[in-house]
Amino acid sequence: MKDASEQYQRCAREVMQRADDLAVHTEGSGVLTRTYLTPMHHAAAQQLSAWMTEAGMQVRRDDAGNVIGRYEAEAGSPLGAPALVTGSHFDTVRNAGKYDGNLGILLPISCIAAWHRMGKRFPFPIEVIGFAEEEGVRFKATLLGSRAIAGTFDGKVLANLDEHGSSMRQVMQEAGFNPDRIAAAAWRPEAVSAFVEVHIEQGPLLLNENLAVGVVTAISGATRFMAELQGLAGHAGTVPMHMRRDAAMAAAEIGLYIEQRCSGQPGLVGTMGILEVPNGAANVVPGSARFSIDIRAEQDAVRIAAVEDVVAEIQRICSKRDVQIELRKTHEASSVACADQLQTQLAQAIASSGLPVRHLPSGAGHDAMAIAAIADVAMLFVRCGNGGISHHPDEIMTEEDAATAAQVFTRFVENFVA
Amino acid sequence: MKDASEQYQRCAREVMQRADDLAVHTEGSGVLTRTYLTPMHHAAAQQLSAWMTEAGMQVRRDDAGNVIGRYEAEAGSPLGAPALVTGSHFDTVRNAGKYDGNLGILLPISCIAAWHRMGKRFPFPIEVIGFAEEEGVRFKATLLGSRAIAGTFDGKVLANLDEHGSSMRQVMQEAGFNPDRIAAAAWRPEAVSAFVEVHIEQGPLLLNENLAVGVVTAISGATRFMAELQGLAGHAGTVPMHMRRDAAMAAAEIGLYIEQRCSGQPGLVGTMGILEVPNGAANVVPGSARFSIDIRAEQDAVRIAAVEDVVAEIQRICSKRDVQIELRKTHEASSVACADQLQTQLAQAIASSGLPVRHLPSGAGHDAMAIAAIADVAMLFVRCGNGGISHHPDEIMTEEDAATAAQVFTRFVENFVA
Repeated sequence: MKDASEQYQRCAREVMQRADDLAVHTEGSGVLTRTYLTPMHHAAAQQLSAWMTEAGMQVRRDDAGNVIGRYEAEAGSPLGAPALVTGSHFDTVRNAGKYDGNLGILLPISCIAAWHRMGKRFPFPIEVIGFAEEEGVRFKATLLGSRAIAGTFDGKVLANLDEHGSSMRQVMQEAGFNPDRIAAAAWRPEAVSAFVEVHIEQGPLLLNENLAVGVVTAISGATRFMAELQGLAGHAGTVPMHMRRDAAMAAAEIGLYIEQRCSGQPGLVGTMGILEVPNGAANVVPGSARFSIDIRAEQDAVRIAAVEDVVAEIQRICSKRDVQIELRKTHEASSVACADQLQTQLAQAIASSGLPVRHLPSGAGHDAMAIAAIADVAMLFVRCGNGGISHHPDEIMTEEDAATAAQVFTRFVENFVA
Repeated sequence: MKDASEQYQRCAREVMQRADDLAVHTEGSGVLTRTYLTPMHHAAAQQLSAWMTEAGMQVRRDDAGNVIGRYEAEAGSPLGAPALVTGSHFDTVRNAGKYDGNLGILLPISCIAAWHRMGKRFPFPIEVIGFAEEEGVRFKATLLGSRAIAGTFDGKVLANLDEHGSSMRQVMQEAGFNPDRIAAAAWRPEAVSAFVEVHIEQGPLLLNENLAVGVVTAISGATRFMAELQGLAGHAGTVPMHMRRDAAMAAAEIGLYIEQRCSGQPGLVGTMGILEVPNGAANVVPGSARFSIDIRAEQDAVRIAAVEDVVAEIQRICSKRDVQIELRKTHEASSVACADQLQTQLAQAIASSGLPVRHLPSGAGHDAMAIAAIADVAMLFVRCGNGGISHHPDEIMTEEDAATAAQVFTRFVENFVA
């Protein structure tokens, strides 16, 4: 066997090249947009399938459109031994980056290809899943691929329509999948010993601490609201300040409270991502405003306490300003913890590569959230550059970090204990 | 002569009826929108002209489209005696109220009609001007009618285009006016002894103090800015609070500062009427935001001090938050004072009607601002209901208040001293 670092570097070069190659399958010219079950999505699935086959895997697709490659256990292993499962999604947001999702499919394929070239197998099979859908762009429903595999796919979303008015059911049929057999795509918990997802951080923590990789502790829970404020419009020149019922200033005060309340507690974040005065005009005191609230925390109790405080403060601010509010909860999800023993094994793989071990929460949702319904899950985060930007063409990752991730993933698998 | 109060009541009934009748000339069905030189604008001008004629006035139109009615001085008055001039505008904003502008034309016409019935004239002529344009809706240039008369019409705006791509010059020609003769529409200062504009308050002060009319002290000066903020977009779940460069929260902090800085000083107001996060999404930390600032005050020094503080605080907030700002001043106008001697005469007319005298600034701009270039100006404000709302179909004024305004205007004219 050649020097292992050469193996990881080859793997990294391959991952970087293939991230570029896969980005060719896009609905937009010059930008990367690949949504569920479009022809470009299908082309990406075929490309992944070809790379999996080349890496020595048996490839199948299920009725949710997931691409699944199986690297068999070594000869003599017990028949039906549970698999070590890895993977991520190959759909993207609109105007996306190349690494979000894709990295978690491409990196395991390249690591397995290296073992395949060496003729190396393990006492357990490895399954790499290219989840067909995670982002929720086309049908406003997320995690479709991983939910199908976890057996938690909600059949109601089959009626959801895309922007052209086609239902998900119709689109699946036209793409050659059977929506009535999605339940059959579910995996038995006994078939999985663990699920480990490799993913770019999509945030700036590793970048700021000059670290290539980190171990995820939990996927944060989240609560989201949409709010509509109704005050009283008025002439910007004629309504004295003390008589105003300015909806925009109520929203501003709420936004700053959320910012202050969610600061200083590690793992807690709060965001007003949508903020607008409908038909605002320079000479009109805003009579209405709308905004979103997104609060997330690694620990559910921390999030719930923050949400309670924010809701109470909203009532106080609106009452003080005589502004009416309609507050609608649009999403609530509990935190999903990564399994301790898997975190420990990832940490050992990092430490044995001579790197400091950094644990961090994932503020973003991932396929591992859904798979947690049937298996212990873990995640390896890889640094992303450019301030940690993601879901954007400026999303970057270095080849050097891909090599480090390949090393850590390889050591993790080679030393894996179920 | 019958009881004078009956005279004012008849005048008020006529004003209320004619405000309804004039609102029929609209570009929108079910809403009042009447912009410069449309066929409906022309129809309104013809209607005003007919009412002026009926009230004993000689009517002419100038090349800006203004409708001018002259009620001659009594026999034996010196030829060419300067006129007492009054009036307001008959164009409207989109989806307007019926009284803004129109009241200031209809009320003098009805008062003059009463004198005409009684055969009463004065030692000076009275001119009533229906200004053709004040709001700036169609060509994004305001006060076109009063600027033409004041000789301050800016010929450059003739090239402005409406939403259909027609230039103002072209539209004027098609309507039968000669844009090259607008300069000739200007009045000599010697022809005007004073200009008095009757207008609804468009604010809540008189309403809140239970007063029908008030004397305007000055038309507030105004400074306006548009601002574009550039921070850094990020994932709402993954970017820790202390690493954010949230453009929306910078805007929120600036908005609340403006609100606080402009509170507590009578006559000073500050408004963020436009506030938006372009393409905001619930799960994205806002990377950009845009907003407007409108600061007005009766006294220029008060406004200038507030603007200086706001600009300094914007720099401090943006620097603290590492957010870039592009701040563009879009408008600056000094305060226009109403002439003391005219305020005194209006106050006497109010007091002699047995009413309390309330002086108040006008936060909104009016034709009187332009006419101030050639004459002393004054304004009589009439209470508007519904919380003081204006530029909106909910704008209301009562017949009782119209009668009070008729009484005050009548007494003012009957006792007028140049």
